[in-house]
Amino acid sequence: MTEFYELKKLTDCKWLNYFDVIFQRKGKAERAWHMCSRKEEPIADADRPDAVVIVPIIKTALGNRLVVTKEFRVPIWDYEYGFPAGLIDDGEDISSTVERELKEETGLGLVKINHVSQIVYSSAGMSDESCVMVLAEVAGTISNEWLEDAEDIETILMDIEQIRKLLASKEKISAKAWGLFYHYAVMGKIE
Amino acid sequence: MTEFYELKKLTDCKWLNYFDVIFQRKGKAERAWHMCSRKEEPIADADRPDAVVIVPIIKTALGNRLVVTKEFRVPIWDYEYGFPAGLIDDGEDISSTVERELKEETGLGLVKINHVSQIVYSSAGMSDESCVMVLAEVAGTISNEWLEDAEDIETILMDIEQIRKLLASKEKISAKAWGLFYHYAVMGKIE
Repeated sequence: MTEFYELKKLTDCKWLNYFDVIFQRKGKAERAWHMCSRKEEPIADADRPDAVVIVPIIKTALGNRLVVTKEFRVPIWDYEYGFPAGLIDDGEDISSTVERELKEETGLGLVKINHVSQIVYSSAGMSDESCVMVLAEVAGTISNEWLEDAEDIETILMDIEQIRKLLASKEKISAKAWGLFYHYAVMGKIE
Repeated sequence: MTEFYELKKLTDCKWLNYFDVIFQRKGKAERAWHMCSRKEEPIADADRPDAVVIVPIIKTALGNRLVVTKEFRVPIWDYEYGFPAGLIDDGEDISSTVERELKEETGLGLVKINHVSQIVYSSAGMSDESCVMVLAEVAGTISNEWLEDAEDIETILMDIEQIRKLLASKEKISAKAWGLFYHYAVMGKIE
């Protein structure tokens, strides 16, 4: 009843690599899988989140709003609606990543983290890429002053009607955001 | 103000491939990106969903339950909680994929599709992999009779308390499912 996996690295890039996996489980036949990973040690390091996804709520004079990003994404050559997010730097704690990415991508400041999820996987059929979902209260003024030159991100404060319209549209949406957009479209809040 | 992208395929596999992207946007400097894709024509074909993710609700004598899968995933070498899901076969329509994958992975039957989302992206920073989220009512008896030999999937009918416990645990969760688990943990239903 051998169980094992062996990884063969097929690319040598900085941010993302491709791997063949030869594996056997519970005495079944040996099989092959393909995957990509952001990690130095794919699979073995699957318990460490690569990134944070921030679900930011901001209080305004007109009520609370969901902070939504509209970001150009090279792999789909189009804009995608989602949440501020970013890779966790080596040694960085989650609240620091949240503060840094919020500032860079939206200009907003972190008031309070309400919840940090367990580790969640983008698409575990093809990658060990992972993140934590961070529900947060934020404040401040939207700005692209801290945006990196390569990034093309617009920040939009959306109320319940705007989220409902977005869900009814043909706009492209991050799969990590869709369920929370759905929740906000029903509840008008996230808490 | 040239805008272009050029793809270079670095692998030659059946299910997933790795690509270098050289691109230029809005007259900015030429840059490189890395991505993986399930498509014959990555980027160009980003408007076509690769898969369906089914969010199934089942009525029981004790009230409605969320149908959750616990599936072994090679890229994380562990079980992941999520929803029944699967790739759309060539020429297959979405409701056929939903029926087929529900049957294969859970043994359950489709009663009614309540909503099909626009296209959503697993992780658009690294891939054009995409799906539609399908909210559905299902019925029948759980069975692994139609499970493929390579698949290791347990189906669990969860009530609001079980979903709350799952979200409070260290269990690994699909990022596509997390927001809907969160919604169900608040509402006890999805409609």
